[in-house]
Amino acid sequence: MLAAPINPSDINRIEGVYPVRPPVPAIGGYEGVGEVHSLGSAVSGLSIGDWVIPFPPSSGTWQNYIVKEENIWHKVSKNIPMEYAATITVNPLSALLMLEDFVKLKSGDTIVQNGATSIVGQSIIQLAKVQGVNNINIIRDRPGSEEVKERLKKLGADMVFTESQLNVKNVKSLLDDLAEPVLGFNCVGGNAASLVLKFLSQGGTMVTYGGMSKKPITVSTSSFIFKDLSLRGFWLQKIFSSERVADCRPMIEYLLKLVESGKLKYEMELVPFHDFSMALDKALGKLGSQPKQVIKF
Amino acid sequence: MLAAPINPSDINRIEGVYPVRPPVPAIGGYEGVGEVHSLGSAVSGLSIGDWVIPFPPSSGTWQNYIVKEENIWHKVSKNIPMEYAATITVNPLSALLMLEDFVKLKSGDTIVQNGATSIVGQSIIQLAKVQGVNNINIIRDRPGSEEVKERLKKLGADMVFTESQLNVKNVKSLLDDLAEPVLGFNCVGGNAASLVLKFLSQGGTMVTYGGMSKKPITVSTSSFIFKDLSLRGFWLQKIFSSERVADCRPMIEYLLKLVESGKLKYEMELVPFHDFSMALDKALGKLGSQPKQVIKF
Repeated sequence: MLAAPINPSDINRIEGVYPVRPPVPAIGGYEGVGEVHSLGSAVSGLSIGDWVIPFPPSSGTWQNYIVKEENIWHKVSKNIPMEYAATITVNPLSALLMLEDFVKLKSGDTIVQNGATSIVGQSIIQLAKVQGVNNINIIRDRPGSEEVKERLKKLGADMVFTESQLNVKNVKSLLDDLAEPVLGFNCVGGNAASLVLKFLSQGGTMVTYGGMSKKPITVSTSSFIFKDLSLRGFWLQKIFSSERVADCRPMIEYLLKLVESGKLKYEMELVPFHDFSMALDKALGKLGSQPKQVIKF
Repeated sequence: MLAAPINPSDINRIEGVYPVRPPVPAIGGYEGVGEVHSLGSAVSGLSIGDWVIPFPPSSGTWQNYIVKEENIWHKVSKNIPMEYAATITVNPLSALLMLEDFVKLKSGDTIVQNGATSIVGQSIIQLAKVQGVNNINIIRDRPGSEEVKERLKKLGADMVFTESQLNVKNVKSLLDDLAEPVLGFNCVGGNAASLVLKFLSQGGTMVTYGGMSKKPITVSTSSFIFKDLSLRGFWLQKIFSSERVADCRPMIEYLLKLVESGKLKYEMELVPFHDFSMALDKALGKLGSQPKQVIKF
């Protein structure tokens, strides 16, 4: 392996929050990029020196050598920066699947999301922009929020609000000329989820894919009856055990093309392995807001 | 008009809770049965003396005479007890639509609902039974709950629990041999909605069609991500302005056939008009639990 990120889902797996638990002792890490070191005699589609990513991703990318069947290795171009090859199969793929699988979006539609600074959030902004879909973003109140807003706007965010800015009677009055959002994404829960619901149009859908605040989602009866909202959930691991998995390799190619053309980018820090301990502290949020930590072996 | 019920939705309309408000002064009542008193010269499908119900139902059934186009009157057999003809288009039709429109149920599947003693609830029990669908019912704690349970079981309820009986670690251990419910109905909110969610299987759907407790619905993040639940809403009035309305007349015929054959029944009290004031108090819940009040003009 050349490089692998520390994702929140890796931490969740180690903490046992996930319903699917590998037998212990187990090796951490779920995605990453490697270089082909040696080949079995029946392998025909890969050469020594090729860059490959495991797909579907699977446990054990935090190690030097992995031996697996040819068909789980997906070859990637060496033109892709290593840290992007190492991180494309979880967060950007989730963003793309969530934009495709719940509501048929067309150019001019609007989506709304909380947790917009996460890599999924940043990917949603950029993927929406490519499709001509407007995006409204909610971030938590924090020092330097104006700077964060500018950064997201540079990525393609149409609007960015802190939660406290949305403490108004009618959030929709803030929409200006944008269509009311037909699709919302929630990775926070609590008040931040309620704000997504408030923005949604009649008949809109909110997809929950995380719960960073550890607070539940509270919904009024009238949101379901009169506003006809649908609430759904997204879990990447479920996709990998469904028929939809067959569509994911072309989607990864599409995402890598966007990376190559500069249309998809997100902040990462490529860290040498001997700084693993510091990288882990950063990934755990012990040192404040930090870019995604990607370990280089 | 011969007879018309006092539905909770009539009260909601009068209180202005509904987003759709008729211009005032307005006549109350939304469904009912009448007898054809006189005909316009172009009417060909109805005769004087026929029993008719307005479909789609519309405001103004609490009066003696209504003049409307032929095509909104749906002829019904005089073999149907008057109080059933007067009440078939709102509650039983809602029950049937909700059983059909969200999850494709097959014989042997299970549904779960709270508010099981309402007419929608009683209809769901009986319609599920006709389809070979198991049903689990949740009622509020009340004096005489054992008697209520027996009454629902006579209608076809497979299981009936009070909310406090479900204050256990794993409600699914109570399922015995029944399949885990794929579909749930919520007309209460608060804890009673959470109980429906707890019963649901992986990938299950909860449909909210009322909020009798006036409490919101609270859902954990993991219910969406790991359990893959979907939360939806149902509002009959929305159906009437959709293409689905075209299917409703055959559905009403189906429901009336079930009434005629004794497979669909629910408690009602047919009240002469001069007792309207008492009937209204009963409908408003001022005199404890009472059967549906149907006014006979």
